[in-house]
Amino acid sequence: MGESMPFVQISILKGKSPESLLNISNSVHEALVEEFGVPELDKFQVLNEVNEGNLVYPSEYLGIPHTREMVYIHITAKIGRTVEMKKRLYAKIADLIHEKENISPGDVFIVLSENSAENWSFGQGQAQLVK
Amino acid sequence: MGESMPFVQISILKGKSPESLLNISNSVHEALVEEFGVPELDKFQVLNEVNEGNLVYPSEYLGIPHTREMVYIHITAKIGRTVEMKKRLYAKIADLIHEKENISPGDVFIVLSENSAENWSFGQGQAQLVK
Amino acid sequence: MGESMPFVQISILKGKSPESLLNISNSVHEALVEEFGVPELDKFQVLNEVNEGNLVYPSEYLGIPHTREMVYIHITAKIGRTVEMKKRLYAKIADLIHEKENISPGDVFIVLSENSAENWSFGQGQAQLVK
Repeated sequence: MGESMPFVQISILKGKSPESLLNISNSVHEALVEEFGVPELDKFQVLNEVNEGNLVYPSEYLGIPHTREMVYIHITAKIGRTVEMKKRLYAKIADLIHEKENISPGDVFIVLSENSAENWSFGQGQAQLVK
Repeated sequence: MGESMPFVQISILKGKSPESLLNISNSVHEALVEEFGVPELDKFQVLNEVNEGNLVYPSEYLGIPHTREMVYIHITAKIGRTVEMKKRLYAKIADLIHEKENISPGDVFIVLSENSAENWSFGQGQAQLVK
Repeated sequence: MGESMPFVQISILKGKSPESLLNISNSVHEALVEEFGVPELDKFQVLNEVNEGNLVYPSEYLGIPHTREMVYIHITAKIGRTVEMKKRLYAKIADLIHEKENISPGDVFIVLSENSAENWSFGQGQAQLVK
């Protein structure tokens, strides 16, 4: 069994089909499983669909164009991944979203926040990652 | 007066009554007051109701079953609580939500993100927790 | 060019005009540009409009009154700003929101979460802030 325990929050423009939402959700999860060693079942996410105008982005930054297809992905994870693992994670997420949904990799924005093992409860009021 | 200054974000499925939302909100706050020593008045929360399908969870993980009653609780708090305090917080939140709303403790998912005192402004453009 | 790379999440009560939302969004961004040295184009935000009752706040805390105009601002930024810079940021955000929207500075609540350079991908599946 892997170990990671991420909590994923995804923000996108309202109006996508349930299938598209599921593809985006699955893309992030598959990448976490492959690159961070997260267990298959450890899929905890909230998808946040917002109105036009509430997804704010520049039309270009660092040479990368952005469109209304922007996908904001905020991952909270237990500390401990290397820079290399993080780089592979970002690449994999962008690849999978592009592959499944034809969203440009430029529109995939990812932020990672890290915390410690004792900061997670997966239910039952317990802190499963510490003794 | 206690000291904690949490900011709480709760995500649940759309469709609960205002009374249920209030019970969940109050459960988290009461637990923070009791276990983290947060002042009674220090209640800053955002409740995020999402559509079916946008609350993503496994039907079981680590032996804990999850249902559409899932409550995601993301607490940002100033650093400084012990592991024991955190464990008691998780237990108390799950207990109170179960008691007030009959939601299974397995459906209460909690993530804690910690930051430093200077990272808070409670209004007036001031950083109240530092000199 | 500056460097900061913030991701901003703003939560407010549903019902504001698009102009008001834009003013609030711009206030936060202008303050980040001025006080944190964020590049003009580096404007990545999600605005979250919630129903009455889902924005939870005390009517007063630390001597500061709060109203239904409450604006919750959660900024995730790369670590490295001084306490003085943070203080100036909070003051500037509250000032600008008051100036542009006549919202009381007491209603501007700010939380800052910091992470490291390797925790950002601005698109293309790359970690632009590390080599």
